[in-house]
Amino acid sequence: MLLFPKEEFLTRMNYTKQKMLEYGVEVLLISNPSNMNYLTGYNAWSFYVHQILVVMIDEEQPIWIGREMDAHSAKVTTWLDTNHIISYPDEFVQSSIKHPMDFVANILEEIGQGNRKIGLEMDAFYFTAMCYERIVHGLPNAEFKNTSTLVNWVRVVKSDREIECMKKAGRILENAMKAAYDTADVGVRENDVAAAIYQAQISGTPDYGGDYTSIVPMIPTSENTASPHLTWTDRRYKYGDYLTIEIAGCYNRYHTPMARTMAIGEAPGKVEELAEVVVEGIETTIDAIKPGITAEEVEAVWSRSIAKRGFFKESRLGYSIGLSYPPDWGEHTISFRKGDRTLLQPNMTFHLMPGIWLDDYGVEITESIRITESGCELLADVPKDLFIKKPASYSGLSLVETPDNQVEFPKKADFSS
Amino acid sequence: MLLFPKEEFLTRMNYTKQKMLEYGVEVLLISNPSNMNYLTGYNAWSFYVHQILVVMIDEEQPIWIGREMDAHSAKVTTWLDTNHIISYPDEFVQSSIKHPMDFVANILEEIGQGNRKIGLEMDAFYFTAMCYERIVHGLPNAEFKNTSTLVNWVRVVKSDREIECMKKAGRILENAMKAAYDTADVGVRENDVAAAIYQAQISGTPDYGGDYTSIVPMIPTSENTASPHLTWTDRRYKYGDYLTIEIAGCYNRYHTPMARTMAIGEAPGKVEELAEVVVEGIETTIDAIKPGITAEEVEAVWSRSIAKRGFFKESRLGYSIGLSYPPDWGEHTISFRKGDRTLLQPNMTFHLMPGIWLDDYGVEITESIRITESGCELLADVPKDLFIKKPASYSGLSLVETPDNQVEFPKKADFSS
Repeated sequence: MLLFPKEEFLTRMNYTKQKMLEYGVEVLLISNPSNMNYLTGYNAWSFYVHQILVVMIDEEQPIWIGREMDAHSAKVTTWLDTNHIISYPDEFVQSSIKHPMDFVANILEEIGQGNRKIGLEMDAFYFTAMCYERIVHGLPNAEFKNTSTLVNWVRVVKSDREIECMKKAGRILENAMKAAYDTADVGVRENDVAAAIYQAQISGTPDYGGDYTSIVPMIPTSENTASPHLTWTDRRYKYGDYLTIEIAGCYNRYHTPMARTMAIGEAPGKVEELAEVVVEGIETTIDAIKPGITAEEVEAVWSRSIAKRGFFKESRLGYSIGLSYPPDWGEHTISFRKGDRTLLQPNMTFHLMPGIWLDDYGVEITESIRITESGCELLADVPKDLFIKKPASYSGLSLVETPDNQVEFPKKADFSS
Repeated sequence: MLLFPKEEFLTRMNYTKQKMLEYGVEVLLISNPSNMNYLTGYNAWSFYVHQILVVMIDEEQPIWIGREMDAHSAKVTTWLDTNHIISYPDEFVQSSIKHPMDFVANILEEIGQGNRKIGLEMDAFYFTAMCYERIVHGLPNAEFKNTSTLVNWVRVVKSDREIECMKKAGRILENAMKAAYDTADVGVRENDVAAAIYQAQISGTPDYGGDYTSIVPMIPTSENTASPHLTWTDRRYKYGDYLTIEIAGCYNRYHTPMARTMAIGEAPGKVEELAEVVVEGIETTIDAIKPGITAEEVEAVWSRSIAKRGFFKESRLGYSIGLSYPPDWGEHTISFRKGDRTLLQPNMTFHLMPGIWLDDYGVEITESIRITESGCELLADVPKDLFIKKPASYSGLSLVETPDNQVEFPKKADFSS
């Protein structure tokens, strides 16, 4: 079930060891599931119990340590030899007495790693305060450093195989966005739109299936568009409602996210106006993005564009994306915001996130992009307009189906009344 | 958007404060999203950035502290006054320089809580090692205690309103399990079964919509049933494949999970035999469960039942369930396993999880239960048999639809050839 050739994993391991030298650590303890997957292929919904990947600077293979019932998943999804897969008994699971990191510390002592310089992912989602306390207690002769995003920084430039996964995720995303557009209507419930999005995300395309996304569909309606991270309710849409749709396509854990804003019947003037500002801003920004400029310069282009129209966005304009597990599809490395001087390079990938949220409404029209040799390309192809959905009871219009089973979104002009 | 009356939240707060006295803490810092929701109603997909609920023993209302763009979600989903909702600027988001817990520590100092006894959820998913380090650094005059599962223990006995949510989740689960049964077939892809499950989970019933589940569908096939936490691939089922289906229904964040095992066409003899052991074991165990017995006694009944047939299960037999957010629908309190002497009480709810995983296959047939005054009741109604799906090309059989739109599963006898 290994999804990349072993050579690609060995290359990733070497880049990681190079960074370990930079940071001055001989052993790396990894609990971020995205980093575990990146280095070994490990892929199972088992990160709700503690698990660790041990990378040693002088060993070719890392060691996977996790729950006994998950060791079999490690055998079938990774390139590791079975003697590099170690499991702890079930009595360590969610116990107030026995902690998995006590077990991990014992293993590290046994294999002679207990007195080395050890890097910890101090701010990774599943490396809890208790994990830290037990590891430090169990390894009194080790020296610890914070290597929270060490592997994340290795991940920022994608291989061509990774880009291919993200482009496939882009096709899935296009289908999911179309499913949202097709389903939302007067009298339809918010959850029915979410269900249609899920159906499209997971069924994928006729050629390949979709994977679960690290964030669930976020589709707040009307005044709730001011709260971008609300999910859905079972309220029915009314004529004149508008919604933001932030979703992704996912293929083999690689994400291509996007947001669009849509109105049922017609949009309030303030939403139309804000959408124009956002679309002008994102188009100006995309034209300016190229290798060699910094992340903060990207944000500055956007800020100048919307400032001309009297707007200001406090939150960051986007972030690095790729491989990920819940609860986030962001990579926690590069952000498009003031102070981030990372230089853009080819095959970096970002969610360019121009959402503007005001007191009682918001508009999001966003793109996933890849930095190319000379500029950037979009990872999915969906019209950037504010979507206007003509309610079914108002028209017999149907979307255009092209012969090869690809779908086309209607242009805004087709639907404005 | 408050989903329970304010009185219920105040009762929950009082139980929590009673436990704070037991543990000897004056302030509780809560980052577990389930506990935040339980005490305030807060509900948004925002736990991928750090956020904290501050409960003070001498204040009626807790204080929500989170990201600026999420403060609006706190205003619309909680019972808190707006002056109890405090937000940090976006420069604190996923930054290696500014950490949200620095901001939280400053607030605690400002409101005079900096020199108190403070409880921390040391092993909660989103309370990272770095959160701990910054809070301890920022509050040098505080005294810290571990209160990881303090609120979780308040949650173990459900109110009648909570039970009603779990029963609604049970109806959704029944529909989702039927969707899996109906869709799986020779030539169908695993991801298409997952898509059908999602569609049923989220569309819910005609009367109420479904919520996202805290764990995604886990539907490993044939030899991969030995790895219970694999999700799905896009392989097509062949005649003679078998799969385990572990899913839940979710309503307002309350979960009713279940697993079933299903064969396409016919099951291998070893799977049929193991399914009989599991069904006999779960039925014997359900008959024995009642208030007043301990969690470990429940496990002992099961162990004796399967030992008679020569089997042994190393992993725990089940765990407390209810309100939850990804990545787990378990409550991290009571486990059915040796050494857990918790006494069962009415309105406790559990996922009774009799899965047996051998070297190259596994069987899971599980139930969600509520402890009643005299025994226990099932939270969903799905036949406990090993499902045998007659491939569509083999028969014209269809499932029975009853007039009121409820679906009935075929009994095993109808489908055995």
